Amino acid sequence: MVINMDKLFADRMKNVHKSFIREILKVTEEPDIISFAGGLPNPGSFPVKEIEDAVSKVLSTNGEEILQYSTTEGYKPLRDYIAGRYAKIGLEVGADEILITNGSQQGIDLVGKVFLNKGDKVLVENPTYLAAIQSFGLCEAEFISVPLLDDGADLEALKKILNENEIKLFYSVTNFQNPTGITYSKEKREKLAEILENEDTVFIEDNPYGEIRFLGEDIPPVKYYLENGVLFGSFSKIVSPGMRLGWIVAKKEVMEKIIIAKQASDLHSNYFTQRVVYQYLIDNDVDRHIQKIKDMYRDQRNLMVSMIQEHFPEDVQYTQPEGGMFLWVTLPEGLSSMDLFDLAIKEDVAFVPGKAFFTDGGGDNTLRLNFSNCDEEKIEEGIKRLGNAIYELKKK
Amino acid sequence: MVINMDKLFADRMKNVHKSFIREILKVTEEPDIISFAGGLPNPGSFPVKEIEDAVSKVLSTNGEEILQYSTTEGYKPLRDYIAGRYAKIGLEVGADEILITNGSQQGIDLVGKVFLNKGDKVLVENPTYLAAIQSFGLCEAEFISVPLLDDGADLEALKKILNENEIKLFYSVTNFQNPTGITYSKEKREKLAEILENEDTVFIEDNPYGEIRFLGEDIPPVKYYLENGVLFGSFSKIVSPGMRLGWIVAKKEVMEKIIIAKQASDLHSNYFTQRVVYQYLIDNDVDRHIQKIKDMYRDQRNLMVSMIQEHFPEDVQYTQPEGGMFLWVTLPEGLSSMDLFDLAIKEDVAFVPGKAFFTDGGGDNTLRLNFSNCDEEKIEEGIKRLGNAIYELKKK
Repeated sequence: MVINMDKLFADRMKNVHKSFIREILKVTEEPDIISFAGGLPNPGSFPVKEIEDAVSKVLSTNGEEILQYSTTEGYKPLRDYIAGRYAKIGLEVGADEILITNGSQQGIDLVGKVFLNKGDKVLVENPTYLAAIQSFGLCEAEFISVPLLDDGADLEALKKILNENEIKLFYSVTNFQNPTGITYSKEKREKLAEILENEDTVFIEDNPYGEIRFLGEDIPPVKYYLENGVLFGSFSKIVSPGMRLGWIVAKKEVMEKIIIAKQASDLHSNYFTQRVVYQYLIDNDVDRHIQKIKDMYRDQRNLMVSMIQEHFPEDVQYTQPEGGMFLWVTLPEGLSSMDLFDLAIKEDVAFVPGKAFFTDGGGDNTLRLNFSNCDEEKIEEGIKRLGNAIYELKKK
Repeated sequence: MVINMDKLFADRMKNVHKSFIREILKVTEEPDIISFAGGLPNPGSFPVKEIEDAVSKVLSTNGEEILQYSTTEGYKPLRDYIAGRYAKIGLEVGADEILITNGSQQGIDLVGKVFLNKGDKVLVENPTYLAAIQSFGLCEAEFISVPLLDDGADLEALKKILNENEIKLFYSVTNFQNPTGITYSKEKREKLAEILENEDTVFIEDNPYGEIRFLGEDIPPVKYYLENGVLFGSFSKIVSPGMRLGWIVAKKEVMEKIIIAKQASDLHSNYFTQRVVYQYLIDNDVDRHIQKIKDMYRDQRNLMVSMIQEHFPEDVQYTQPEGGMFLWVTLPEGLSSMDLFDLAIKEDVAFVPGKAFFTDGGGDNTLRLNFSNCDEEKIEEGIKRLGNAIYELKKK
C-alpha cells in the first residue's frame, strides 16, 4: 500500500509555495537570455585570492579546532568584529547581543520561531521581500501591509494600522529595499522609532544591503534609535553569499530565546567558514573592498538608469536607488508585468514580475530589475530589448 | 518605557529550554576536568591537510562560482556521490531525493516544519536524542515514548501505541543511538518496516553514526525496507562537524515540501563548504579515512569498557556499543545520576545525567559517557575516578 502523504503534511505547508523567483530563474538560465531577474552579487567582486589566503592560514594554524563543533552563538572574535563595526556608526552593542546565522534569511526563520503564534499579525511593507513572506507564512502569520513611499513606510498609515491591530512583528528592509530599492530617510527612522517605542510590536530590521551605499550619506539603522529593535546583517553582499553567513543583533532577553531556537535548528552556523571570514576581515582592508563593490554597482546602476531614460516610454516610472542591487519599475496602470514577461522572454530578456512581492494581491503593473549581476554590454542590450517589449505591450 | 518582551514570545518557546548538555559543558570546560560529557568526534581524526588541498583546488579553479549563491537542493555532484554510496549498500535513491542540510540537526527542524501541527504526536525512543526533543518541542508536538530494548524499540509496545494513538512521526536513531549506543538488529528493522508500511506515520531515521561501525556487520537502514521512510545522514562524524553538512533522503512528494521549508529557512546550505567536501571526497580514499576513525574509536571504546569492568560496582549495567561515540550506564534502582554528578565533579570527572534524554520524566539512575573525544590516559583515569564516585554514592 502506498500511503497518501498529502494528508500528513502540516497545515503551514498549504500557505507557502516554491519561490516564484526560483521558478523564473530556471526559465532564465538559457545562455542567450539577458536576465535582470536574479538577485546575485557580481561575482567579479568576490575576494577569491584573499579567501584562499585566509583558509590556508586558519587551517595551518588551527586546523583541528576549526573543523570541530562550536558554540551556538558563533565565533566570539567575529561577533566582536561586528560589534566594532557598529560602534563606528555609534551603535553600541555587545558581542553577547550578536548571534551568527546562515545569512540574514535564517534571521527571519529564527525570529518567526521566537515570536509568532499561528494567526499572529506581521506587518510588512507593500511590496516586501519575497522570502520573508515565505518564512513568516510558514509560521502561519497573518500579513498586513503598509504602503511604501519614496522615503520609507507611510507613517500615517502605520499609526492607523497599529491603532486598529495587534501587530506582533513589523518586518522592514530599511536600506535599498528588495524589491524596490527604496531607503528610509533619517527623519523617517527617527519618527518610526518614536512611534514604535511604546508599542507591543517588535521591529525587525533586515539590512543585507546597508554597506552597499554608492550615493548619498550613510544613515544609522532604526535600531540606533530603537533599543528594542532586532537588526539583521549579512556577509553575503560584502564577502560571499555562498558562505551563508549573517547575524542577528538583539537585546539579551530576546537573544536568549534566539539561541534556543538556533540550537534546535542546526546547533550552530558553519564554524570553518566563520573562522575563514574572520581571518579575511582582519587581514584585509575591508572598506577598500566594499568601495570596489560600490564603484562597480554605481556604474551599473547609472548605466541602467540612463538606458531606461532613453529606451522606456515616458509614462513608465522607476526608482533611482542610492545603493543595493535592485531597481523598481512601475508600468502605467492597466498594464500587466506578467504579460510583459511573456513578450520580454521572446526578446530574450527577463525580470521578476512585481506581483510576487505583494501580500495584498496588488502590484500587477510592477517589476523588479537587478543591476548588480550584469556587465555593461548586457545592461545596454537588455534594457533596449525590454523597452521594445514595453512599447509592444502598450500597443496591444 | 521599556516593553515587557516576555508576553511577546511565541507559546512554543515555553516548551523548550537551553540545552541541558550545553549548560553542563560550560561546567566541564575547566582544564583539570576529565569530561565524558560532550559529544565531539576526536579532532585527531580530522583530515586537515586533505581539506586544505581541496580548498586550494576548488578556489583556484572555480573561485567565483563557489562563493556565489546556489541551489536550495545542494550541489548536484555531491548529491550524486551520496546516492552512489547508498547504491553500494543496495539502497536505490536518486539525487533528486536528496537535499543537503546544515548537519542532520537541520533535518529534524525541516521535517518538523513539513509535518507537525501543534499537538501532533511524535513517537520517540525512551531515551532519545536531546536536540530532537528540543526541535520537535518547538513545533509544539506531544511526545509519546516507546521503550528501547537491546536490539531496538520494543515492537510489541510500538504496535500497542500505534493502535491507541495517531502518531504523525516516529523519530529513531537506528545505529549506535545517542545516548544509549543501542543499534536496531536486522530482524527488527524488517519487522519495523512491516509494521509501519500501512500506518499513517512517517518514520524519521536519523543516522549520523551509521558509518562508524567498528564491530559486527553493517546493516541496511530501515529506509531500505520502508520506501516511505525519511533518512538523515551527516558528514559530521566522517569528515568535519564544524562544516555543518548533512542530508535528508526522502521520496519526491515529501522532498518537494522539504525544499520549500529549506528555502524559507536559509535559502541553501553553505555552498563553498559543499564544494570543498565534495572535492575532498573524490580526491581521497574515504573508506580508508573512515577505517582510521573506526580503529581509533574501537580502541577507545574497548578501553572504556574494560576500565568499567574493573572499576565500577558489579550491579552497575552498561551498554557495549558496536559503533558510534556513546556508552550508556544504568545505576542500581534508587541511585540518582544527578547526585553522582555532584560527587564526580568533586573528583574532576564529568558526564551527562540521563534524565535529559527522557520525555517521560524517567531515567534518574542513568548516564551517558562519550568515548570518542578522550585519549587513553584520560579514559583510564576518568573511569577510575567515576568508579570511586559511584562507590561513594552507594555508601550514602
